[in-house]
Amino acid sequence: MEKPGHVLAAALTRPVCILGLGLIGGSLLRAATDAGREAWGASASDTTVEKARADGYDVADDVAAALRRAAETDALVVVAVPLTSVEDVLAVVGREAPECRLTDVTSVKEPVAEAVARRAPGTRFVGGHPMTGTEFSGWDAGSLQLFHDKVWVVGTDDDADLEVWTDVVALALACGATVVPAASDEHDVAVARISHLPHLLAAVLAAVGAEGGELALALAAGSFTDGTRVAATRPELTAAMCEGNRNALLAALDDALGRLGAARGSLASTGGLMATLSAGHAGRESLDAARLDRREVRIDLDGTPSELLEAMRELGRSGGRIIGWTSDALEAAEVLELD
Amino acid sequence: MEKPGHVLAAALTRPVCILGLGLIGGSLLRAATDAGREAWGASASDTTVEKARADGYDVADDVAAALRRAAETDALVVVAVPLTSVEDVLAVVGREAPECRLTDVTSVKEPVAEAVARRAPGTRFVGGHPMTGTEFSGWDAGSLQLFHDKVWVVGTDDDADLEVWTDVVALALACGATVVPAASDEHDVAVARISHLPHLLAAVLAAVGAEGGELALALAAGSFTDGTRVAATRPELTAAMCEGNRNALLAALDDALGRLGAARGSLASTGGLMATLSAGHAGRESLDAARLDRREVRIDLDGTPSELLEAMRELGRSGGRIIGWTSDALEAAEVLELD
Repeated sequence: MEKPGHVLAAALTRPVCILGLGLIGGSLLRAATDAGREAWGASASDTTVEKARADGYDVADDVAAALRRAAETDALVVVAVPLTSVEDVLAVVGREAPECRLTDVTSVKEPVAEAVARRAPGTRFVGGHPMTGTEFSGWDAGSLQLFHDKVWVVGTDDDADLEVWTDVVALALACGATVVPAASDEHDVAVARISHLPHLLAAVLAAVGAEGGELALALAAGSFTDGTRVAATRPELTAAMCEGNRNALLAALDDALGRLGAARGSLASTGGLMATLSAGHAGRESLDAARLDRREVRIDLDGTPSELLEAMRELGRSGGRIIGWTSDALEAAEVLELD
Repeated sequence: MEKPGHVLAAALTRPVCILGLGLIGGSLLRAATDAGREAWGASASDTTVEKARADGYDVADDVAAALRRAAETDALVVVAVPLTSVEDVLAVVGREAPECRLTDVTSVKEPVAEAVARRAPGTRFVGGHPMTGTEFSGWDAGSLQLFHDKVWVVGTDDDADLEVWTDVVALALACGATVVPAASDEHDVAVARISHLPHLLAAVLAAVGAEGGELALALAAGSFTDGTRVAATRPELTAAMCEGNRNALLAALDDALGRLGAARGSLASTGGLMATLSAGHAGRESLDAARLDRREVRIDLDGTPSELLEAMRELGRSGGRIIGWTSDALEAAEVLELD
């Protein structure tokens, strides 16, 4: 790639084109605009377009027009539609801006990369996943604070285009997020364990509890209330998220089924549950420790692209995050500040 | 039994002897004293005895002495030791106060009733389970507010002694709790589903998540944090609670394993999870509805003891609670106010 300093300077001011203006896309249009970027959006919903314009944002008449402007200005295009609509939108990207810089904000990374390869194979794609949201949806639910202090995973595969990778990292940081670099497959495996499986277990627990009738529900306290909270999410949304990560979720589910089956066997035979409960206690302590044990490190951006990408993935694997560029853009582009 | 008015009048002023002064027992000594009852405690720990006395409470020199005083004053004896010590304490009860009015505050009801039948068969036992607690333990962790607005399950089996049943209900109400009447077996089945299973699932989820390594933990957000919260409890305490309710927990576990296995099969074949997630969503909505839909009803205390006990169990099964006696003791003893 070009010299890192030039790449970063361009990334810090690159225009942003956002396709889809729901909770995430709408928040991103607000946050990118607030950060001083030239940013515009597009939505298939006339109502959304009207609302976003009424709020003072730059919204194109249609997705194709937004993409043509992106092609003309070498903007970073962000696919921010629900997972079930990604394929259709990518087809338009492939027609209107076939070589654009491209990222997304959906909850799985390998299936989206495969869809890009089918529908917009000439684009320079680096996936992304801001780990944020609320139980609400639509333009009105958005806020420019949605990404503040949240984690934004940036896809860091071997073949990643380092310029676009830098664009996505710079956008995430500009929105107030910190960046966890991760390979697509490692991301999908991780979120299966800490997001998709919890949603499935919450659903199973809620159903088993309700099967106990009104008496059981009258006795339900904190463990049940907390354990079933995300079962209140609209099941269609949870299904799309979980079904989109089928392979990784199957592996996580098998791990859970194995552990639960072992607990069942132990309870039925010796009656003992300490092995299960001790492993769970240790796991929860690891979570608490992961939130405390952070140190600042610096990673030199010298080296080949493949060395750099591997160093970034290793950072993510060890629980690290990119929290900023050290000083002003041109001078400090070779150093990332990490915690 | 005697005329209800006399029974209630006696229950409202009955002395209370509390064996064990940890979180629950210590809080009960404070709350009963605060409610104007003659109340005393006993603890096997010299340190606890000293602390409780220093705080101004009436604490006997040893358990046997506390029980002899209970036998002399026809007090309600409350077994408030951990489940693993219940059997030993009941042996002392059987020796020192073999015909006393007896209740307990442990998390399972059938195993305790069986232990009473073995160790103190002449006592007039009605089990109890205040659904309250914190992650801390010991006298210092107690508070007279611990039962306020919490649910206190009172064992309502066919053979319950109505006088002692009234004693336990009156004590729970005096401590600020509301009362859910339930048969021992129905209680154990219910808490397996809404308390013991959630603890096991939290442990399994925490272990599966931690198995994903630092990357997974770095990406963990609300669904994982909430779903694993109770895995932070000391595993020995959770194990004692869950292992003590083995039969009911096995049934709840099998229900969960069946549902999770079905989800696994569906995800692997058709890829669809809507059946699982919709059932979970409906279950969670039932929980929210159960917390909103309360109405006041009144239950007449006329009728035979067995009719009354069945009416009480039916109240618990339908999600109802006893929230008080309607007016002053003697005049209103025939009516319970329920919501």
